[in-house]
Amino acid sequence: MGGDEAPRLIVEGARLAADRDGMHVLLVGRPEEIGDLPSTSSGSLSIKAASEVIAMDAEPATSVRRMKDASIVRAAEAVRDGEAKALLSAGNTGAAMASSLLRMGRIKGVSRPAIAVPLPVFGGTPSTLLDCGANAECQPEWLVQFAQLGAEYNRARFGVETPRVGLLTIGEEAGKGNELVKAASALMAEIDWADRCGASYIGNVEGGDLLTGVADVVVADGFTGNVVLKAMEGIMAITRTEVRAAIGSTAEAAATRPIVDPLLDPVFDTLNAGKTGSAMLLGTKGVCLISHGSSSAETISHAIRTAGQIADDGVVDILRASIAASA
Amino acid sequence: MGGDEAPRLIVEGARLAADRDGMHVLLVGRPEEIGDLPSTSSGSLSIKAASEVIAMDAEPATSVRRMKDASIVRAAEAVRDGEAKALLSAGNTGAAMASSLLRMGRIKGVSRPAIAVPLPVFGGTPSTLLDCGANAECQPEWLVQFAQLGAEYNRARFGVETPRVGLLTIGEEAGKGNELVKAASALMAEIDWADRCGASYIGNVEGGDLLTGVADVVVADGFTGNVVLKAMEGIMAITRTEVRAAIGSTAEAAATRPIVDPLLDPVFDTLNAGKTGSAMLLGTKGVCLISHGSSSAETISHAIRTAGQIADDGVVDILRASIAASA
Repeated sequence: MGGDEAPRLIVEGARLAADRDGMHVLLVGRPEEIGDLPSTSSGSLSIKAASEVIAMDAEPATSVRRMKDASIVRAAEAVRDGEAKALLSAGNTGAAMASSLLRMGRIKGVSRPAIAVPLPVFGGTPSTLLDCGANAECQPEWLVQFAQLGAEYNRARFGVETPRVGLLTIGEEAGKGNELVKAASALMAEIDWADRCGASYIGNVEGGDLLTGVADVVVADGFTGNVVLKAMEGIMAITRTEVRAAIGSTAEAAATRPIVDPLLDPVFDTLNAGKTGSAMLLGTKGVCLISHGSSSAETISHAIRTAGQIADDGVVDILRASIAASA
Repeated sequence: MGGDEAPRLIVEGARLAADRDGMHVLLVGRPEEIGDLPSTSSGSLSIKAASEVIAMDAEPATSVRRMKDASIVRAAEAVRDGEAKALLSAGNTGAAMASSLLRMGRIKGVSRPAIAVPLPVFGGTPSTLLDCGANAECQPEWLVQFAQLGAEYNRARFGVETPRVGLLTIGEEAGKGNELVKAASALMAEIDWADRCGASYIGNVEGGDLLTGVADVVVADGFTGNVVLKAMEGIMAITRTEVRAAIGSTAEAAATRPIVDPLLDPVFDTLNAGKTGSAMLLGTKGVCLISHGSSSAETISHAIRTAGQIADDGVVDILRASIAASA
């Protein structure tokens, strides 16, 4: 029920995932709004009824506590109960987080779950930025744990054997940053990262390093991570719009489109946040993926496949084992 | 002496500013490295000797205290002593800040000077983001003052009659953010902005709003501001590179360049941080402008003209009067 054109686009994305990838998709929400399910040539679509919807601008924690029949709450319960192996939401991010936390529960030893977002890297595997908004205010120890969760996730998801972990701050030299980062930096420097999670710690990274692939995992508090993520997404969108408008601004230039567009499309696809991949909440006992509200049906279908993959790969168990081993 | 190709490019930029705009430029540094000054058809170039140079990676405050004959220190003294009306540096930002603060002094009533950076807005006047790195750790009251300084600056610099001021955070609703932003938000909401500095307060803005022009002034702590600024600059650079590479990747597409490039150049110029304009340190008793180390001679010449303009427009006096009136 979440997303700018839900449930229509979500159902269409689910149909694509069923048809193409044989996925079995459980659509949680109001049956009367979901309507008749389209037929699929493989996989399956089914509905789990939920009568309430947590709006995009609703206060997440309170809503989750009060609206026991909300679609996002029921979806988290479906994962908890083994009825589904992963949850995907394009709705209220806070509500998806709170539902997962309250219904699936937190992995033992995890201080705070964090939102991990894949960042595009041209000619390389995506980097992982976390936390992108689950925790606006952080303790230094949490950042250390984000690094560990991010490294395990990055390896499991993108196959990076020894993820390079960086700490997002405002200068290259150790000790540059605000109080939180300085304290986290001191803690990070003392850890044997290879031993803890097969990662290597490369120290400080700056804002300008985010899309260069210099680090596989970039750690930030949820305030900084969210602001910087949204700023990057905003600029990518503006750049796409302005470049396209420029090329369309004269008839002569517009005539080059058949030649130029097929070359530019992959660039802009890479820079399109929605297409790079869904965010995952790391630290809960079940898979919770979060897509943009503006996701297309195509993007939703990719996210559904990714959610299944993450479940099949046992990513939650990997995170659980890593945290347990370092407790 | 500061900048990736200093002093050569700086001298060339100064020559352009003298020739084109009749600027009188005092070059502060090692005469033997600056070499023979080029002749100019208008304006003038001259040298003020300084024997030391604070390196890009040197610790700013200590360096400024110890290296009394550093070029940046002597340049700040030249402004203090009325020998120059503005300071421009493409070198170590922290050293430029510390020199200005220690040699020019702080405007009475200003808690902390802040770095204000113009952000490009397509089809509009630039927005001002501050603080972009002077203060990694901030008090809520400082953010309120940054808003006031930024509004006065935005009006004086870009002619915006009633600047709209926003607070950078992670959600639209009041009360969204970290502890600092929540406290600052409560303070900002109680102020009569029209009365204080002829501004209007529009509340929260998110990362995605930064280049849309929804706010003329965006207030952040120096950690967040710096990270987000560098992230945006990084993406702009990557996008330029990738779009150009894509268009150059086949002979057929490369042949469209004479048609397409003149349309794309203005887009990329707008997105080129160096070209949008120099950063200004707001809150010191003299004009201190900071350019990118990678600035071209062309960019340096623009920055020199801007520095002169800001001095002629009495921007420091405007800031001083505003702070005095609201004390």
